[in-house]
Amino acid sequence: MLFLSPRLRCGEMSQVEIISIGNELLIGKVTNTNASWLADKITRLGGKVRRIVVVADDLGEIASSIREAIARGTRLIITTGGLGPTYDDMTLSGIAGCFGLEMEVNEEALDLIKAKYESKGWELTPARRKMAIFPRGAIPIPNPVGTAPAMKLEVKDGVVYALPGVPSEMEAIFDEYVAKEIKEKLGCMSFGEAHLMLRGVPESSLAPLLDEVRAKNVGVYIKSHPKGVEAGQSLIEVHFTCHGTTEEDANKLASEAASDLAKLVEKKFNVRPSTT
Amino acid sequence: MLFLSPRLRCGEMSQVEIISIGNELLIGKVTNTNASWLADKITRLGGKVRRIVVVADDLGEIASSIREAIARGTRLIITTGGLGPTYDDMTLSGIAGCFGLEMEVNEEALDLIKAKYESKGWELTPARRKMAIFPRGAIPIPNPVGTAPAMKLEVKDGVVYALPGVPSEMEAIFDEYVAKEIKEKLGCMSFGEAHLMLRGVPESSLAPLLDEVRAKNVGVYIKSHPKGVEAGQSLIEVHFTCHGTTEEDANKLASEAASDLAKLVEKKFNVRPSTT
Repeated sequence: MLFLSPRLRCGEMSQVEIISIGNELLIGKVTNTNASWLADKITRLGGKVRRIVVVADDLGEIASSIREAIARGTRLIITTGGLGPTYDDMTLSGIAGCFGLEMEVNEEALDLIKAKYESKGWELTPARRKMAIFPRGAIPIPNPVGTAPAMKLEVKDGVVYALPGVPSEMEAIFDEYVAKEIKEKLGCMSFGEAHLMLRGVPESSLAPLLDEVRAKNVGVYIKSHPKGVEAGQSLIEVHFTCHGTTEEDANKLASEAASDLAKLVEKKFNVRPSTT
Repeated sequence: MLFLSPRLRCGEMSQVEIISIGNELLIGKVTNTNASWLADKITRLGGKVRRIVVVADDLGEIASSIREAIARGTRLIITTGGLGPTYDDMTLSGIAGCFGLEMEVNEEALDLIKAKYESKGWELTPARRKMAIFPRGAIPIPNPVGTAPAMKLEVKDGVVYALPGVPSEMEAIFDEYVAKEIKEKLGCMSFGEAHLMLRGVPESSLAPLLDEVRAKNVGVYIKSHPKGVEAGQSLIEVHFTCHGTTEEDANKLASEAASDLAKLVEKKFNVRPSTT
């Protein structure tokens, strides 16, 4: 249970996986900013992202990536991409295939799509209607920015949210609809963090000090990020993260660890770390 | 075999997976630019990235992600991150665990590290020496930017390259050492592409035209990327990608498909697509 303070016990739902669907990510045309945006949000809501997996627009790949996440014990899966009107938008079919569900026109989704096109005076073509074909039993989520509705599917083993790949659409749907729902599921944990910037201390010299601070601050995860050399001095950001019962408590635990490291660094290297 | 023209047969090595190791990616503190940088390079070298997987700094996660890639038939795996001197840099141990190899001091790697520190007059502490502990049989790759050597491990089932997580180090090692080696392995294919920008054509209206162009241009992968609305008109980038026996041939196949779509769009919507 990564990042989890040993003092806490949390529900199964705290483990989350993000599955990003899109060939454009696998040929390096697009950087997966959706995954980092979601990972940050989920972490701050108290969740622990166990994996981020990028797969192709391919029914078998989509289905197997979800199956593998569930086999790892993940009960909350968020996919991005593949909800649009074109031939290679096949996320919902892949999810249906994974759970052995039929695909059918979802009347609620169709109403959402009709409303979008009717306001523009456009007809409902097969490509537009395709965006309303959902796995049986799935719930459409309105898209306040674009056309394709997102999807929520509750299954025996957990919940799958399928969000669009266009960042502005994905972010709006997550913030307006998904965040509240998953906060309830993740509810028992809060996230806290602290930072230190060290100038003139090489990472290899810092390593034994990190070991000392870790031993004293069990449950706080400490990560050093070398940032290169600035004005002839090596620059390292140290990031302290932690889960606690409240955000205040979690921030306090992280800050205490940062303070411990700052004291050790000052004593050993005569360098005063800054918090920015 | 995604992206692969049916006219070509390519070796097993063409399927590549990228495994990005680092808790900072899973909490959303860092966006995985390493993966998109590598995916772009590998695609242009003729490879097909099947998955990008992000896992935690955790021995079990690292080992299982590699094991799963091999089980999917991947013979060329590139990892990033986890080669440094701190306690949570454990990529090489995870790889060794996956293949049942002992970890031992690699004298060649140790010489590379000693040379870096001796030039600064620094002693070889345990944290610095840790970066020379490699799986038995692995080959160190010099790091022209930082200290930790990268690693190449040839196993029965393929090759694993372990590169650092600091982007400038990862990029330098890939360009100077890895690209040449994997080009030989991927050798039989070249990558080509073409672009079209469409203004004023909604993606849902474009979908049937894409189907028509796809049917005529088998082997060319066509992806539409909605870019939002500009001056009241929807903006879509269409990206055509293809593998061929030469780069020239592949670019030609992609351009022909782009030209076919441009004609259809002009005829149906009276809109002339641009190539920028």
